[in-house]
Amino acid sequence: MNDKQTERVISALDELAIETPSWGFADTGTRFGKFLQDGAAIDINDKMADAAEVHRYTGCCPSMAVHVLWDFKDSKDVPSVIQAAEKLGIKLGAVNPNVFEGQLYKYGSVCNRDQTPREDAKAHLLDSVEIAKQVSSRYLSLWFGDGSNYPGQANIRWRKRAMTQCLQEVAGEMAADQIMLVEYKPFEPAFYHTDLADWGMAYLVAKAVGPKTKVIVDTGHHYQGQNVEQIVAWLLDEDMLGGFHFNDRRYADDDLTLGSIDPYQVFRIFHEILFFRWETGKKPEIAYMIDQSHNDKNKIEATIQTVCTAQELYAKAALVRHAELTRFQENNSEIDAEECLREAFFTDVRPALIEWRKRHGLSPDPLRAFRESGYTGRAAKERKERRIALGIRAASSYA
Amino acid sequence: MNDKQTERVISALDELAIETPSWGFADTGTRFGKFLQDGAAIDINDKMADAAEVHRYTGCCPSMAVHVLWDFKDSKDVPSVIQAAEKLGIKLGAVNPNVFEGQLYKYGSVCNRDQTPREDAKAHLLDSVEIAKQVSSRYLSLWFGDGSNYPGQANIRWRKRAMTQCLQEVAGEMAADQIMLVEYKPFEPAFYHTDLADWGMAYLVAKAVGPKTKVIVDTGHHYQGQNVEQIVAWLLDEDMLGGFHFNDRRYADDDLTLGSIDPYQVFRIFHEILFFRWETGKKPEIAYMIDQSHNDKNKIEATIQTVCTAQELYAKAALVRHAELTRFQENNSEIDAEECLREAFFTDVRPALIEWRKRHGLSPDPLRAFRESGYTGRAAKERKERRIALGIRAASSYA
Amino acid sequence: MNDKQTERVISALDELAIETPSWGFADTGTRFGKFLQDGAAIDINDKMADAAEVHRYTGCCPSMAVHVLWDFKDSKDVPSVIQAAEKLGIKLGAVNPNVFEGQLYKYGSVCNRDQTPREDAKAHLLDSVEIAKQVSSRYLSLWFGDGSNYPGQANIRWRKRAMTQCLQEVAGEMAADQIMLVEYKPFEPAFYHTDLADWGMAYLVAKAVGPKTKVIVDTGHHYQGQNVEQIVAWLLDEDMLGGFHFNDRRYADDDLTLGSIDPYQVFRIFHEILFFRWETGKKPEIAYMIDQSHNDKNKIEATIQTVCTAQELYAKAALVRHAELTRFQENNSEIDAEECLREAFFTDVRPALIEWRKRHGLSPDPLRAFRESGYTGRAAKERKERRIALGIRAASSYA
Amino acid sequence: MNDKQTERVISALDELAIETPSWGFADTGTRFGKFLQDGAAIDINDKMADAAEVHRYTGCCPSMAVHVLWDFKDSKDVPSVIQAAEKLGIKLGAVNPNVFEGQLYKYGSVCNRDQTPREDAKAHLLDSVEIAKQVSSRYLSLWFGDGSNYPGQANIRWRKRAMTQCLQEVAGEMAADQIMLVEYKPFEPAFYHTDLADWGMAYLVAKAVGPKTKVIVDTGHHYQGQNVEQIVAWLLDEDMLGGFHFNDRRYADDDLTLGSIDPYQVFRIFHEILFFRWETGKKPEIAYMIDQSHNDKNKIEATIQTVCTAQELYAKAALVRHAELTRFQENNSEIDAEECLREAFFTDVRPALIEWRKRHGLSPDPLRAFRESGYTGRAAKERKERRIALGIRAASSYA
Repeated sequence: MNDKQTERVISALDELAIETPSWGFADTGTRFGKFLQDGAAIDINDKMADAAEVHRYTGCCPSMAVHVLWDFKDSKDVPSVIQAAEKLGIKLGAVNPNVFEGQLYKYGSVCNRDQTPREDAKAHLLDSVEIAKQVSSRYLSLWFGDGSNYPGQANIRWRKRAMTQCLQEVAGEMAADQIMLVEYKPFEPAFYHTDLADWGMAYLVAKAVGPKTKVIVDTGHHYQGQNVEQIVAWLLDEDMLGGFHFNDRRYADDDLTLGSIDPYQVFRIFHEILFFRWETGKKPEIAYMIDQSHNDKNKIEATIQTVCTAQELYAKAALVRHAELTRFQENNSEIDAEECLREAFFTDVRPALIEWRKRHGLSPDPLRAFRESGYTGRAAKERKERRIALGIRAASSYA
Repeated sequence: MNDKQTERVISALDELAIETPSWGFADTGTRFGKFLQDGAAIDINDKMADAAEVHRYTGCCPSMAVHVLWDFKDSKDVPSVIQAAEKLGIKLGAVNPNVFEGQLYKYGSVCNRDQTPREDAKAHLLDSVEIAKQVSSRYLSLWFGDGSNYPGQANIRWRKRAMTQCLQEVAGEMAADQIMLVEYKPFEPAFYHTDLADWGMAYLVAKAVGPKTKVIVDTGHHYQGQNVEQIVAWLLDEDMLGGFHFNDRRYADDDLTLGSIDPYQVFRIFHEILFFRWETGKKPEIAYMIDQSHNDKNKIEATIQTVCTAQELYAKAALVRHAELTRFQENNSEIDAEECLREAFFTDVRPALIEWRKRHGLSPDPLRAFRESGYTGRAAKERKERRIALGIRAASSYA
Repeated sequence: MNDKQTERVISALDELAIETPSWGFADTGTRFGKFLQDGAAIDINDKMADAAEVHRYTGCCPSMAVHVLWDFKDSKDVPSVIQAAEKLGIKLGAVNPNVFEGQLYKYGSVCNRDQTPREDAKAHLLDSVEIAKQVSSRYLSLWFGDGSNYPGQANIRWRKRAMTQCLQEVAGEMAADQIMLVEYKPFEPAFYHTDLADWGMAYLVAKAVGPKTKVIVDTGHHYQGQNVEQIVAWLLDEDMLGGFHFNDRRYADDDLTLGSIDPYQVFRIFHEILFFRWETGKKPEIAYMIDQSHNDKNKIEATIQTVCTAQELYAKAALVRHAELTRFQENNSEIDAEECLREAFFTDVRPALIEWRKRHGLSPDPLRAFRESGYTGRAAKERKERRIALGIRAASSYA
Repeated sequence: MNDKQTERVISALDELAIETPSWGFADTGTRFGKFLQDGAAIDINDKMADAAEVHRYTGCCPSMAVHVLWDFKDSKDVPSVIQAAEKLGIKLGAVNPNVFEGQLYKYGSVCNRDQTPREDAKAHLLDSVEIAKQVSSRYLSLWFGDGSNYPGQANIRWRKRAMTQCLQEVAGEMAADQIMLVEYKPFEPAFYHTDLADWGMAYLVAKAVGPKTKVIVDTGHHYQGQNVEQIVAWLLDEDMLGGFHFNDRRYADDDLTLGSIDPYQVFRIFHEILFFRWETGKKPEIAYMIDQSHNDKNKIEATIQTVCTAQELYAKAALVRHAELTRFQENNSEIDAEECLREAFFTDVRPALIEWRKRHGLSPDPLRAFRESGYTGRAAKERKERRIALGIRAASSYA
């Protein structure tokens, strides 16, 4: 890598900010159980402290997404949370309502045929908008578990319209500079049909809701074999790409560490974004957020690993020579065009990452530096004691 | 099945017309070769004769879709073809251009970065429009093999816009009562990216092209595990469902006989359509067409089998009690709602089909009747001799 | 359906016994939460009572599989459980150890590189063997969550050998007439690699363990597009098919009601078994067991629905005319061979099921009869109160 | 990369030989057609010349696999072919019979219920053994298209036994030092069931055939989401891994360039092999062969690209620090273990490849060197003329 390439990487990294998720610091798992960690965050203060650690060592995670149900008892919490965040040097990012866990959402939230849960869900969405305003968050990030498990159970079209109508009402209450992100997912927790199953459905609903609404792409929410970067390219072309939930997977929505299974795919996604910017001169606002479930990995370490991987793959994408690539594409020189991507992907950008970290006063090896800080041990000890004091015993069982 | 149900089935069947594909009567195969049949159609006259046979025994296949490249040497053929069709008692249906087989389409047709193939493809599409007008066909049915095989090879967004622009120009030449159908497919023959990979992409292009453009759903063109009937329901709700290409599959676009692998899925697709009609009172115009590749089955027999299966599954869907179903859906009575579908699906509707055939002067068992007619033997003998006379030796080899 | 067919169905049904799972009567869910039911079973006595209800109305579910961890506090429970089962008129069936939920199994059970969990798991398996002996159960049914989440994390070959060795030791403690069933699953809860990922791996381990070990096929534990009935046919041919865990799915291991998504596949599985029996004259011992997760359906109703569906599809499979089918297969008459299966599948066997129930003194409509019994209401009331009395508050949260 | 690493890579590369496929130099395509190249090989002499070119520039492709049907008119050809190969400095490698393309194989070859094609197929296999002996080839590499398209069509168990019996007879005629490789594939060209659908089936047949029979892994012949490297690890542990057919894919058996879609997967496969060797001290004999279909890429360029990619990914795998990895695995230090693989994968090994080439007197950039040689232009001109002279007009049409 020559100096010009290094500067190209550094300047690309200067623009990349990644949001960590509050729930990524808490114990999560599969339906077969959670493997509990003493150091897992108990409350939003722990989560903010952990998110601040990630930012301390990576230098590119200034904000943390919040999950309303899990992070706030009620809106009275908000001021103190904001204050705590400020003290820790981070901001609160996207606000994520939760309308899938409550018992009343058994047959859906905003798509439920029963008015009560529907109204309840809308109220929760509106509360979330309110919290987002209070914490000055730009994003209301919506994921719904709505759907059905059996053929015949649901009137798919009725539910489509119910979803649209509710989101229109919620959007009406949002501030002018706030953006609603709509997420899609092919299955789980609903197994026969999911109300927003793919990007096409999310797109149609977002369009119907209005100009402040965009689609969010969760990298794990696709059918097998689907070309995710093509969806990204289409959404960019339609000015409808709002952001990402980053993770990786082999089979379903496995919520593994980004790039741990298929790093070349992540690289190609970043490439489509940087190629769009180069070609159009536009700079779309894209919220890069992590959404992973670290059931066995240490949660902060896994998050640092994720962020470093994202930086590395983004840096590689920044090395693609766009003018050359375009020329090859125009001439249908397919091997040469392909080699443009491969050349960039197989370049070792780690020296440039180290240089970038050096310039920002960061350790060259964030993971090692974090480990050496002893934070995990201290947090585990304190949180374990606090759990005992609070009488918390998270022992879920599948049956 | 009581009399009321029988009448319900009969009245449903009266409305169901299925179009056969001209190419379904010719020899087709996989990339590993074709298994040739003496009785396979050689030219469009054979195909029309075969399609007429299917109609003779099933009574519900009055039209045959045509493939421009394979069926017409040039537009001068058209008048004689129309005359022949009339004589056989069938009509020519959807006109299918072919812009995937020519050598110049190596890197795509309407999305090719090279202007020559792009112009050539547009000219072929316009020729097809002209043929459609001449044969009084309502549909121009478009499937593109366009895409790329390797990451980096293609500018996905450029190709998206090229596709849209070309189709807009073609649509501009169509008659006021003609409809353009746009088909999507996730992969094959392009393996990395297909320009119209899913229903969302077909929808966006169709919308951009204009009001005479709809999406066509090929039942085999989906990712594994995708809920096809949900896509149908959404397209109906958006007034964007133009028609179907019927077939079945286990893994990819296997082009097997409809309902041979998953009959319950076909039933659910029909259910969504009939449920939409019942609920809205609208009667959307939907072109039901077959698109299968019978590499080993006798082609006419397989087509008759397909049509009878479609009728059977449509008849079952017609038995769903919509008012009851709606009540169960409204109350989230999921088992009861599900049982509404299962009850209908597991009802043996074959007596009603026999009754319908009787009323239309058809044999109760179309497959047997066709076999007993001796048509296949006669066609095989005559066509074998003609092949020899014409010097046709279709011996393709994979390598 | 003529009398001969009816008798054929009835005689087939006389041989079909289906085992219900104790955990199918308790609250289960997805990682995003459980939707709790007042009537859900709290302890093994509830589960046995519920299983007895299913048997009361269906007449073909004389046994209930048990899950050691969830059903027994310790082996002292066993005698009273046996007594209670006898009183309810059911038997205890397959014994299922649980070595996936405990905190020490974070990195696996019998495949863990750490000796402590490995020994612990083996002890639990041996305890389960002991319980199986005490309850006179023929089957030890093994499913492992063992695997890894990330490339590099595990030595796949070391784990393979550890699994084999442990099972050999466990098999050594089993009674001469007991059978070990080994289950496979492609993913979840381990996302990168599962130690027993497919039937080939389960086969190899079972073979290495010894002659008392067979493979169990969970219908939901396959890759998309996999031909499950072919696996069944191969296992039959190798005398290695031990049993089934029945459920259905659209995408992953969705644990939906059997036949709710793809009934034709279940029919084909039954067909392969009955065809094998007809052809070979052998009568393999196959344990038909249900393994579903009814997160929203009433659990007993869903189980009755499952059993009736299994009977219906088994009855259809019993109608296949094997001699005729064989003749068509021998002549490569593929359409006729296919029609043998379709003819049987599309025959309405429900009258024969009613006749079978009549002869066994059962209600013709088990689901309705159960609903009219008022059992659910009584159980819900009593169990709700008991939950309160016991201080049970199952409120799991994803994060 | 330090000197030690460079030497490690170089020594690894010294052991890696990759066999090119004769058919990879001819025109191949999809069922929708072939895009013909003037420079494509016409006969086996062209293919050998092309294979020799690949070896000239890569230095690691000393042999070319042959396809009996496409490469030999009859066994009288063999001596002259051997002579030509010698002159070109390459050897003939694995012999691949072809029993899927002939018209008589419509319902299968060795599994056909009809004795005539079965005998014919066996005779062709025996001829192939004879050719393999004559060309001193170690491998008979078997892939079958056998299977069925529709439920009921085939007696799956009968066909399993027919396959086994035939291969036993063929193996009986092989020389003591020859190895039979058995390939599996989930679908295509048979769509409902393939007689050897997965590695478990290939394993069972290979075992039944005898000790000279191994399984060959085609990287594109797997279900989506399947962990291929785990299969490789199991086959290694069972001493049943015979070799590879290399290619890549996004959805099905797309036969794209190795590593073009998921390079990390190829790296992991190599890692499992090198890890096995390190741990056991064994050096299994593995035939690395390419099996790709370059429908649009220049065939020799694509093959060189493939070989260089294989070298690059093999070199990366050679950098994994096995002792360290083992220590992390033993301690369940999952992040550290994972980082061992990532560290190696993200190291830029291209300088070591250049050094290896330098030491072998090769150009540092084989693709460029080949392009600059002008071979393609010369071959295109000569072959185009020869095609005209021979009256070859390969114009296949889907219908």
